Amino acid sequence: MLATIIHGERDVRVEERPKPELVEPTDAVVRVVAACVCGSDLWTYRGVRSVASPKPIGHEFVGIVESVGDSVSDIRIGDFVISPFTSSDGTCPSCLHGMQATCDHLSFFGAKDTNGVPLAGAQGEFVRVPFADGTLVPVTEDFDEALVPSLLTLSDVMSTGHHAAVSAGVGPGATVVVVGDGAVGLCAVLAASRLGATRIIAMSRHEDRQALAREFGATDIVAERGAEAASVIRDLLGGVLADAVLEAVGTRESMEQALAAVRPGGRVGYVGVPAGGAEFPIQFLFDNNISIAGGMAPARAYIPELLVDVLSGAIDPGRVFDLELPLTESAEAYAAMDERRAIKVLLRP
Amino acid sequence: MLATIIHGERDVRVEERPKPELVEPTDAVVRVVAACVCGSDLWTYRGVRSVASPKPIGHEFVGIVESVGDSVSDIRIGDFVISPFTSSDGTCPSCLHGMQATCDHLSFFGAKDTNGVPLAGAQGEFVRVPFADGTLVPVTEDFDEALVPSLLTLSDVMSTGHHAAVSAGVGPGATVVVVGDGAVGLCAVLAASRLGATRIIAMSRHEDRQALAREFGATDIVAERGAEAASVIRDLLGGVLADAVLEAVGTRESMEQALAAVRPGGRVGYVGVPAGGAEFPIQFLFDNNISIAGGMAPARAYIPELLVDVLSGAIDPGRVFDLELPLTESAEAYAAMDERRAIKVLLRP
Repeated sequence: MLATIIHGERDVRVEERPKPELVEPTDAVVRVVAACVCGSDLWTYRGVRSVASPKPIGHEFVGIVESVGDSVSDIRIGDFVISPFTSSDGTCPSCLHGMQATCDHLSFFGAKDTNGVPLAGAQGEFVRVPFADGTLVPVTEDFDEALVPSLLTLSDVMSTGHHAAVSAGVGPGATVVVVGDGAVGLCAVLAASRLGATRIIAMSRHEDRQALAREFGATDIVAERGAEAASVIRDLLGGVLADAVLEAVGTRESMEQALAAVRPGGRVGYVGVPAGGAEFPIQFLFDNNISIAGGMAPARAYIPELLVDVLSGAIDPGRVFDLELPLTESAEAYAAMDERRAIKVLLRP
Repeated sequence: MLATIIHGERDVRVEERPKPELVEPTDAVVRVVAACVCGSDLWTYRGVRSVASPKPIGHEFVGIVESVGDSVSDIRIGDFVISPFTSSDGTCPSCLHGMQATCDHLSFFGAKDTNGVPLAGAQGEFVRVPFADGTLVPVTEDFDEALVPSLLTLSDVMSTGHHAAVSAGVGPGATVVVVGDGAVGLCAVLAASRLGATRIIAMSRHEDRQALAREFGATDIVAERGAEAASVIRDLLGGVLADAVLEAVGTRESMEQALAAVRPGGRVGYVGVPAGGAEFPIQFLFDNNISIAGGMAPARAYIPELLVDVLSGAIDPGRVFDLELPLTESAEAYAAMDERRAIKVLLRP
């Protein structure tokens, strides 16, 4: 089969690889219908994370189940499924708590399962999915092909944006600031709007992203940064900072921006993978009673409820994809995102 | 009037001081019925916080209103009132959000009001209270004199223990660990029980405190510390760490203990004033989706609801006082707490 392989910094190739097969009786093999490139893939592409040897890449996909192991009962051959960006067994304490992101059998596509057996990346034609019953969410209703991009966002970016909003306790009437205008930040805007926030301030300096943020429910755009941004936000909100700040970047600068935008007693939900240097200043948090929550999203927990709204048309997170390419053009997909020519690129095998 | 004055390390004296008078039209002057010594007062007593010149001390009290300024409308002369440990105006954005601990007019008893005018400490015969309407909570029902100790705990320790539990999202069915067996930690046990936690593990090595923790609702006591404690907690909870950990100390060691006791996806509520060295390790928190919330308690927000339960007898937090002394023996009160001969000492002017 064809699969996207990253060889090193800015060296992405589509190559022939063995098609994955069932290994464990709890596995499924899924034919990928659509995959995409994640902001976190760019860390590897840009050389921030090094590549010891060529490896498959990609962790977001939807597809059709091609085969299932003998122990799989909820997922059937032919099902259209959404895969979270990690596997989860569905039975460990974390899964039972709805925190599949810390599952005892967590594994990442493109890496290895918990037995050390390699897993294909999602940017390819087929993927083996461990613990298919605990991992995959089947879409049992008929749906229009045009919904595929939105369904694909549930695999990661929409679920992650939603996690930021849930972690920050966003609810009806909340005032919200979103730090980060990548696909996750934009989905966080949409998630905040869906949860009833009445004022949503998106921080962005890019016109295309500002426009999409507004479509997703942002009531205000702030292009300033640092103390100046905090001052503008305070003015926009009538002299008070925000109830909730959603941090979707993960750098020291973005975390400082988040903490500068939240009111005393407010909440920061953070989903940006800490990129080194970000800190939580304990005395400031204590003095201002600011809560901090977040981490890697338990996408598996959120997909069912978000799926309802995608199928009904209530939300359309697939609009974060502003470029679609065939899988064979993965290298161009990475380049387009790296050069900010695209917000997020969808790949079709 | 008589007032407790701290002169320096382990040098507490009761001295004659001018009786406070109304300064602002929003002030009240309260005759103290009962006050007490706080664990945080011991920081000064032990010389961890230095004393530049002799200063009044104490911030927890209940009493009878002796006079009110012209602008005070809700508090009347003769009212029995509970004072939170800080003043609050009741009208600023933080107060309107129920976060009086970050009020625009926050001031501490024994320090100065926001105009720079000194305030008496609570360990004395009279106290001037700024923003009486926004600060004081009157007890309008008749009550038995025996409830005075419990009413006094609402001023700080019970409200602070409750803040830890609320910050950690404790609710029905939660499993809870409480780090710290001082008066706040013990009140945190009581608060968790009141909020419906079904399993409450108190960490304590002192028999008297263990016994009181059990009376307050602790289902288990753990005397171990560090990794050993985490292992015992995991065993007690059937192989999983706690949903919520209430941190009521504020040291590096206690915060590490809290983080070692909470399950992935769980929550730490912290109310121990950070004593230097405590840290929030961002990568660990992200990887485990652990949320952190807390700070100085907005006692004013919590007193009304806790008061109902004190008056009904549903909770009896006054049991944290295991020694009562006349105000004139303040020095002995400090010594008894410093030497751990008493958990918390009540002072009667």
